[in-house]
Amino acid sequence: MILIDGKKVSAELKSAIRDEVTQRSILGLKQPHLAAILVGNDGGSETYVAAKVKDCHEVGFQSTLIRFSDNVAQSELMDAIDKLNRDPSVDGFIVQLPLPRHINENSIIEAIDPSKDVDGFHPLNIGKMALGLPSYLPATPSGILQLIDYYKIETSGRHCVIIGRSNIVGTPLSILLSRKSSPGNCTVTLCHSQTKGLKEICLQADILIAALGKPAFLTGDMVKQGAVIIDVGTTRVPSLTTKSGFRLSGDVNFEEAAPKCSFITPVPGGVGPMTRIVLLQNTLKAAGEKRR
Amino acid sequence: MILIDGKKVSAELKSAIRDEVTQRSILGLKQPHLAAILVGNDGGSETYVAAKVKDCHEVGFQSTLIRFSDNVAQSELMDAIDKLNRDPSVDGFIVQLPLPRHINENSIIEAIDPSKDVDGFHPLNIGKMALGLPSYLPATPSGILQLIDYYKIETSGRHCVIIGRSNIVGTPLSILLSRKSSPGNCTVTLCHSQTKGLKEICLQADILIAALGKPAFLTGDMVKQGAVIIDVGTTRVPSLTTKSGFRLSGDVNFEEAAPKCSFITPVPGGVGPMTRIVLLQNTLKAAGEKRR
Repeated sequence: MILIDGKKVSAELKSAIRDEVTQRSILGLKQPHLAAILVGNDGGSETYVAAKVKDCHEVGFQSTLIRFSDNVAQSELMDAIDKLNRDPSVDGFIVQLPLPRHINENSIIEAIDPSKDVDGFHPLNIGKMALGLPSYLPATPSGILQLIDYYKIETSGRHCVIIGRSNIVGTPLSILLSRKSSPGNCTVTLCHSQTKGLKEICLQADILIAALGKPAFLTGDMVKQGAVIIDVGTTRVPSLTTKSGFRLSGDVNFEEAAPKCSFITPVPGGVGPMTRIVLLQNTLKAAGEKRR
Repeated sequence: MILIDGKKVSAELKSAIRDEVTQRSILGLKQPHLAAILVGNDGGSETYVAAKVKDCHEVGFQSTLIRFSDNVAQSELMDAIDKLNRDPSVDGFIVQLPLPRHINENSIIEAIDPSKDVDGFHPLNIGKMALGLPSYLPATPSGILQLIDYYKIETSGRHCVIIGRSNIVGTPLSILLSRKSSPGNCTVTLCHSQTKGLKEICLQADILIAALGKPAFLTGDMVKQGAVIIDVGTTRVPSLTTKSGFRLSGDVNFEEAAPKCSFITPVPGGVGPMTRIVLLQNTLKAAGEKRR
């Protein structure tokens, strides 16, 4: 069994981005600039955005954080997006989700200029992805593809079972892995809450991706000998042994599943670290050949 | 075994559209207007476009056919699209595919105003579909969903196997049938040329959709007793018994498969007639509440 080391892979990719920023500076190209809009004071969102700002700093990107209070009006957010869309110094930007309930999240995402949508959430980018056209890929699916690629895991002709049909993980991943590309060319089965006979379906999987958000849901008896397991779950569960009082749990019962696998991602340290890298990669791509 | 009668269903839906056009006229709403761009003299394309124009006439839509010769320049097509985008009298329009090789088909499709893209091929519409947002659905997938709906075929929790991952049938259908909607909520397996063990996968299917374009590919031994079969294939094969010298063949070996099925679509007369209806439905939707 090989443990897929997302921390190591992401560190290498991050270092490659840093080198490219240095190279850009020598060539007279502009410093990539990522902006983030953060609404309210949700603990999770604060942490994620702080990490993104830190990542930018570490690879030599410029970053801008724009904060709004919880009671921001839809129109204020729209104005801020419009400004970022028109600001030539900003290469890409994100609006940290979730947004407060009174905000129409879809309109916000659709207001982002797709060429600056480095989260890859805009329907135009999702559609281009589905059609196999160049686009910004969403972070988690892209991070998983890069892990598969890094470990040279064969995907062509293999049966991939994905559990969970979310718009940001399961569904885009099912599209990407079905495509005529590498990694890709999988026979993909997309499972979800309404699926019957899940265990029997999982037992057919050469590649098994758990992305449903239920701690330790995937048990050992659902895993075929030699399968590759990608665990996308990151649920906070109470813990007596950590300082914070919680730990991250994946969707896979690691102790049961790991002995049967050829490859498996741990949680934490598997898929998670990759998602932060994709945002940097997309921003670098957005900066393109623009000069200083 | 119930034969799914696409001719009957499409005739009913067409009649409902005609009634709605009459109703619109009474209410002072504008007559829906579909425009089509046809390039060159390909026999298939000529036939398809002629049928669409005829359909418009029959339901009381206005139609406009814009023709270009085979050697049209990309810029001429772009100009024509731009004009149609800006013409308030045109509610929706299509560019008949395929286009000659020297034309960049993707740029042409992306130039269409998504709100007039009644073929549902624009990446923005594909992306919205994937995200479950309102959009124009592509004709074949939408036609199939409507057949399933008409015959009250249960989809929720059932295993649907789709053979063929094209951008206009297999891939969008896999997305639509996976969604939390009705019809939908299927566990979907998307198969294609690289799939291994296809027969075993097909034998698990409660709903089996053949959309690969290989005459009589799906044989009786690939069908589970009681399955629903949707045959999307329409390949012209030589025939000694027809005046034209050819007949349409589906992707399913009908004689072998039919006795095992609960429902099956014939070719011709199954999915085919539905696709023409969807174009009319999308155009009607595009006309919306616009007044005369």
